[in-house]
Amino acid sequence: MRTVFWESGGLKLIDQRLLPARLEVMTCTDHGSVAQAIREMVVRGAPAIGAAAAFGLALAGFNSKSSSVQDLVADLQAAGEELKASRPTAVNLAWAVDRILNFVRSFEGAAQDLRQEILEHAQRIADEDVRINKRMAEHGASLIEDGDVIIHHCNTGALATVDWGTALGVIRTAHEQGKRIHVLVDETRPRLQGSRLTAWELEQYGIPYEIISDNMAGYFLQTSVAKKCFVGSDRTAANGDVANKVGTYMLALAAYDNHVPFYAVVPTSTIDLSLSSGDGIPIEERDPGEVLGLEFMGERVAPKKARARNVAFDVTPARLVTAIVTEKGVIHPPYEENIKQTLLGN
Amino acid sequence: MRTVFWESGGLKLIDQRLLPARLEVMTCTDHGSVAQAIREMVVRGAPAIGAAAAFGLALAGFNSKSSSVQDLVADLQAAGEELKASRPTAVNLAWAVDRILNFVRSFEGAAQDLRQEILEHAQRIADEDVRINKRMAEHGASLIEDGDVIIHHCNTGALATVDWGTALGVIRTAHEQGKRIHVLVDETRPRLQGSRLTAWELEQYGIPYEIISDNMAGYFLQTSVAKKCFVGSDRTAANGDVANKVGTYMLALAAYDNHVPFYAVVPTSTIDLSLSSGDGIPIEERDPGEVLGLEFMGERVAPKKARARNVAFDVTPARLVTAIVTEKGVIHPPYEENIKQTLLGN
Repeated sequence: MRTVFWESGGLKLIDQRLLPARLEVMTCTDHGSVAQAIREMVVRGAPAIGAAAAFGLALAGFNSKSSSVQDLVADLQAAGEELKASRPTAVNLAWAVDRILNFVRSFEGAAQDLRQEILEHAQRIADEDVRINKRMAEHGASLIEDGDVIIHHCNTGALATVDWGTALGVIRTAHEQGKRIHVLVDETRPRLQGSRLTAWELEQYGIPYEIISDNMAGYFLQTSVAKKCFVGSDRTAANGDVANKVGTYMLALAAYDNHVPFYAVVPTSTIDLSLSSGDGIPIEERDPGEVLGLEFMGERVAPKKARARNVAFDVTPARLVTAIVTEKGVIHPPYEENIKQTLLGN
Repeated sequence: MRTVFWESGGLKLIDQRLLPARLEVMTCTDHGSVAQAIREMVVRGAPAIGAAAAFGLALAGFNSKSSSVQDLVADLQAAGEELKASRPTAVNLAWAVDRILNFVRSFEGAAQDLRQEILEHAQRIADEDVRINKRMAEHGASLIEDGDVIIHHCNTGALATVDWGTALGVIRTAHEQGKRIHVLVDETRPRLQGSRLTAWELEQYGIPYEIISDNMAGYFLQTSVAKKCFVGSDRTAANGDVANKVGTYMLALAAYDNHVPFYAVVPTSTIDLSLSSGDGIPIEERDPGEVLGLEFMGERVAPKKARARNVAFDVTPARLVTAIVTEKGVIHPPYEENIKQTLLGN
């Protein structure tokens, strides 16, 4: 089953808030509920929310009462804005929405045909994501050696994409190639995508793992237990700065300090050439309740009146990134030059 | 109320497992239950467990049926070994036990007098701890400026000591001096001493704070929000390497990478001159259940069969530590030289 798929005229999403306790699929029948599902992290992971937003536009098309193409395009543009605003950091959301809107604006034909074509376009984006992930995984798996212990942050598996995954997809492919791998899974506070989702996926794949608190990664790097780090990215700048789930920067620092390779696995749709560095990447701040809401033995951990900050991403400077794995190959420093060359082929 | 105190022939400990939900005091009437309370973290924090162990020896003395001093000393030595084994990383435990055992071995007099003298000695250790903390706090507070935003890891307050605290004691003294301070409280996974204990203490003192996940510290350092970091230590080597609650190393790396001062607040009883570097410090690994036991909305977060690692401490290399604050003054690099000079006065 894919994480994001179209069925019987609706968008189906694995509800990632419920895992690992329950595997349930939610159905969205309008673009507003898709935006809400993205905001509330029913669906998360840059590639997965890109595909979900594309299907959201398809829903907006089918639900629009406009009979002229011009009116339909206006409705789609409004829906696109709403979807893009649902989460700010991952660029895939805007990338997928803009890709469809560009197509829509240049469309010539009947409104009813446009509706169908948008769905086909969204389906293409979803199918492409799976193909791209598998290509990335092949490139990335060449970096993994038999016996490696790998630290992984957040969730970048099938659940973060339409299928297969980015960084976790690399690990999965290396595992299928017969390499023995042990994953140290950062639990990834505050929403615990590591212990909830990555651990659950690794169990499905039969890959041995242990969960660690994010703050323990330094110890396992210092003591030469961990041999590599693999992470995803929500937006990568033209200079190779990597915005990713909060904590990635501190992990990269610890890897660098111990001469352990640190790899970001990044579909080219996640690379934002319009930003010269990571400084321009908007960093989402979420509900403090995600930090404060922890329970232990049925009791809330923090004092009742406690306040919190909840920054969802941070930027890892390119100088800490050993290489960037894309579907077009592994990119090494100097990034500015090599990213441009890989993406634009010049 | 002190965190560790003697009353009506028993050792009283604030049960830190129950805070912030309930403030309850547990009574220990034999050294075995003191060792258990240390192991299970009813009492935690290097100085607090040192004082608790000292009172544990007093209990061992009173409970011993030996009538000769020689037999009593043998009983005390056995009790001392048991207490020292309760947690391996903090050196204060061994320091307090050995200090009393050295006194015991040189004692001349009646067994009944020795019993009473051990209690007085333990009481002296406890009283000294408070005096030392207040002296450290005066030295450390000079490093804090009006308006500082400070990142603090774990709990180093009154609860981690007999009273007043080490790193948090510094912050408290600066606050009492009228400096406006805002504390970003690392929640400190896995046992959440930050959100449970430090947040609770800061509320008592009226010091503004916000809780953050440990992995967010990098973001607040990168964005120039945080101006200083203050941590405690469980054991500091002769070269200034600092063993402290796991996550300290990654925090220090992020502070260093952003030119933010990183201070360790360390009573001299925590400095282990017998270790030339932090490599020799034993790092405790605790029950994986502390990592896996999280609940959210009444459901366990990690998959049922999940495994975890639970390393309780890490070592921050001296090169990342801006200065070490002790009761004898603030020690700057080069540490090997200056620590020796401060401790031995040569």
